[in-house]
Amino acid sequence: MNQEKDIVVIGCGAAGGTAAQFARKTDRKSIITVFEKGRYPQYSKCGLPYAISGKIPRIEDLIEFSQDWFKKANINLLLETTVEKIDTNKNIITAKKGNETIEKSYSSLIIASGAKPCVPPIKGVYENEKLMKGIHVLRTIDDARNISSSIIKNKTSVVIGAGLIGLELAESLFNKDMKVIVVEALPSILPNTLDEDMSNLVFEKISSNIKIFTNHIATRIESQSDRIKSIFIKNRETNEEFEIKTDLLVIATGLKPDTHLADLAGCKLNEKGYIVVDNKCKTTVKDIYAIGDCTEFKDFVTKKPIPVGLGSIAVRQGIAAGINAAGGNHLLLDGVLQTCTSEFFEIEIASVGICDKNLVSGKFNGSTLPNYYPGGKPITIKIYASDKGKILGAQAVGGNAAQRINTIGVAILGGLDVETFKKFETAYAPPIAPTLDAVTLACDIISAKLSRRR
Amino acid sequence: MNQEKDIVVIGCGAAGGTAAQFARKTDRKSIITVFEKGRYPQYSKCGLPYAISGKIPRIEDLIEFSQDWFKKANINLLLETTVEKIDTNKNIITAKKGNETIEKSYSSLIIASGAKPCVPPIKGVYENEKLMKGIHVLRTIDDARNISSSIIKNKTSVVIGAGLIGLELAESLFNKDMKVIVVEALPSILPNTLDEDMSNLVFEKISSNIKIFTNHIATRIESQSDRIKSIFIKNRETNEEFEIKTDLLVIATGLKPDTHLADLAGCKLNEKGYIVVDNKCKTTVKDIYAIGDCTEFKDFVTKKPIPVGLGSIAVRQGIAAGINAAGGNHLLLDGVLQTCTSEFFEIEIASVGICDKNLVSGKFNGSTLPNYYPGGKPITIKIYASDKGKILGAQAVGGNAAQRINTIGVAILGGLDVETFKKFETAYAPPIAPTLDAVTLACDIISAKLSRRR
Repeated sequence: MNQEKDIVVIGCGAAGGTAAQFARKTDRKSIITVFEKGRYPQYSKCGLPYAISGKIPRIEDLIEFSQDWFKKANINLLLETTVEKIDTNKNIITAKKGNETIEKSYSSLIIASGAKPCVPPIKGVYENEKLMKGIHVLRTIDDARNISSSIIKNKTSVVIGAGLIGLELAESLFNKDMKVIVVEALPSILPNTLDEDMSNLVFEKISSNIKIFTNHIATRIESQSDRIKSIFIKNRETNEEFEIKTDLLVIATGLKPDTHLADLAGCKLNEKGYIVVDNKCKTTVKDIYAIGDCTEFKDFVTKKPIPVGLGSIAVRQGIAAGINAAGGNHLLLDGVLQTCTSEFFEIEIASVGICDKNLVSGKFNGSTLPNYYPGGKPITIKIYASDKGKILGAQAVGGNAAQRINTIGVAILGGLDVETFKKFETAYAPPIAPTLDAVTLACDIISAKLSRRR
Repeated sequence: MNQEKDIVVIGCGAAGGTAAQFARKTDRKSIITVFEKGRYPQYSKCGLPYAISGKIPRIEDLIEFSQDWFKKANINLLLETTVEKIDTNKNIITAKKGNETIEKSYSSLIIASGAKPCVPPIKGVYENEKLMKGIHVLRTIDDARNISSSIIKNKTSVVIGAGLIGLELAESLFNKDMKVIVVEALPSILPNTLDEDMSNLVFEKISSNIKIFTNHIATRIESQSDRIKSIFIKNRETNEEFEIKTDLLVIATGLKPDTHLADLAGCKLNEKGYIVVDNKCKTTVKDIYAIGDCTEFKDFVTKKPIPVGLGSIAVRQGIAAGINAAGGNHLLLDGVLQTCTSEFFEIEIASVGICDKNLVSGKFNGSTLPNYYPGGKPITIKIYASDKGKILGAQAVGGNAAQRINTIGVAILGGLDVETFKKFETAYAPPIAPTLDAVTLACDIISAKLSRRR
């Protein structure tokens, strides 16, 4: 078969855009078409909070690959074009751009339809099936623009959800001189990323600037002249309820996958609605790949499926699907490590792998520099290992947390145990790092725990 | 045998001090005695340049474990005490403290006698078998004090040797407002740490402050009234020779092992004079261990012996010897990774493993942050792999070089290849790191080179 490849990508986010790019790298001759329902070519969703804060000067700066870039790469990118149907027998998709109907054949189809913000059932949150005026989510450039234009200095804004995006956004609103209140249903902040003892290290710093109500849920919204006036929140332990007056509310309580098209095409979805894919990002339907936030992929440690929900994973899936759709052979690792990082009020946090309370953990509070050298930053590392000492997960808060987590992540990838890892000479020099780094000493604590058990 | 262990350590540097410490941790009852010929308990030799620059306020701050600390740990530390003889039949050492002769039995002896600066045969460098006045080396606190008291603002100082210590010291002298000239015999700076293309990235920055003559050797020293007046250096290519007037010269051209005692005791030395030890840090002589700069240890990648010459390795050997001498069982890794770092004019450098020109290399110039996020620092990563793609070494210059090198170091330790490593999701967030880090992209370049070969 020497027929030209005809690759169609649905969605031009990090996953879809990357897939198109790597398909082109793999095969210069294939026809590549990307359908994107939004107005913008590939941009960084993760950068949106920093465009709101002004750290990134112009929101257009988030566009990583322009329409011109796609043109030069000979990739046909159609914006504001919504795919509506997939004919899996004839390998044809049908899309709408305004009133125009477009039919496009494919030899390989890559679904990168992403995810949508998940809005909890708070009374009064919707009006006429739309979010009440003054209530926002943060997923697209347009969402960020809407939030930005609602910012009023010294006024109060409320963010629901103290996950990564909720807190990144809360800090951005604070940096725009708003009073910020964060409401989190669980007992601690960053519940999907850090243990409570670890998140407490950041909580202190954040909550000196931003009021955080953990263990509180939003119960209802009151409005005035079609606009939010206040939100009522309830303490989950005491059931005490009170009102917060606000005209800017952002809901950041997670995502649900956008899998309408994949479902229509007959792709297998899991019980949570994510598209099931293999190590090549193939779905269960012939010639169809799926990547990014609409998919699930197995965890490297447990081998159990988890929702993809990180840009870093979406990009790696995009690479795989793009190469494979263009005739290459790219197998993903046997699961994702779930490496994750962010920064709040200049404190870096990061995590990797599985941090399960049934595992053995070792936690060390240290400094990024030797004690005698001025200017070291605090760094706390918590590592999790199996009862045989195999490293399975880690969390870090403080100086160079992300890079240290990468180091531990590679130890997980390589199947290393704490005995081996702690003997590795981490790079040492007085202005850079101590002779025994916090990552080493956290392993040493696990090692001591395990030897006491023997 | 329930007899009390009687552990003797010769030398209280990073290796010896750590050995005593870990012997104590392993066995609370053993008798532990440390003989140190110098005036100070365990201090950081690597910190000396920063005490000279004033970055570390007081030179005594370098003392990491005080005499009091050793006392509390029930370790008998004898300063200014020189071991002169080892009777390996009776397991007794003889030492001198002033006029006093001390005999001490041992069940285990740990030799951590370190290394001495190596002074090249420059005409006029010695007077009466001592370095000419104004000529210094940098190995001890006393050396650093002597250099510090010789600093005169706006005068010219010369450093011979552009290795890590030479350049760290040169920057310190510059920071004390001296004019600094560095002379290096080889064609590029940091020749033992970085390839020329990598060291050039720092050369530019350093040489805008400090005059560096590479490919030049010092030929002779002229003195006046028993003090250095000038040094003559010669271009190795053109043989052109010229004079630099200076009254402060520091020689930083490497170390030679101090193995006089080990030799007397009959320990096997290699052809370069380093003590040969196994994975437990045992020498070839019964009950005698050796650790630190006086030893050689095999390289993890090549398995060939190399001089230990890094504090990070000395400490890990100290841990092993201390635990083993106290009855524990601690095996070092099957070789050292040679992880190494420093910083010059705020540019971080680091390296790990074997960077051999016969290997396949991939170099990537990137940024520590995504392009759209302001404030990213340049980072250049060069990775070396075997022709089968196994990662064997790396060098880095720029933002978080050391932590990135640790990540690659663990990949070497785990036996990972570039195909696996490049699929690992490095931690990504706009204010922290890009989706595809420089470490990933350097691997990708190797990957592309290898696939073109197939």
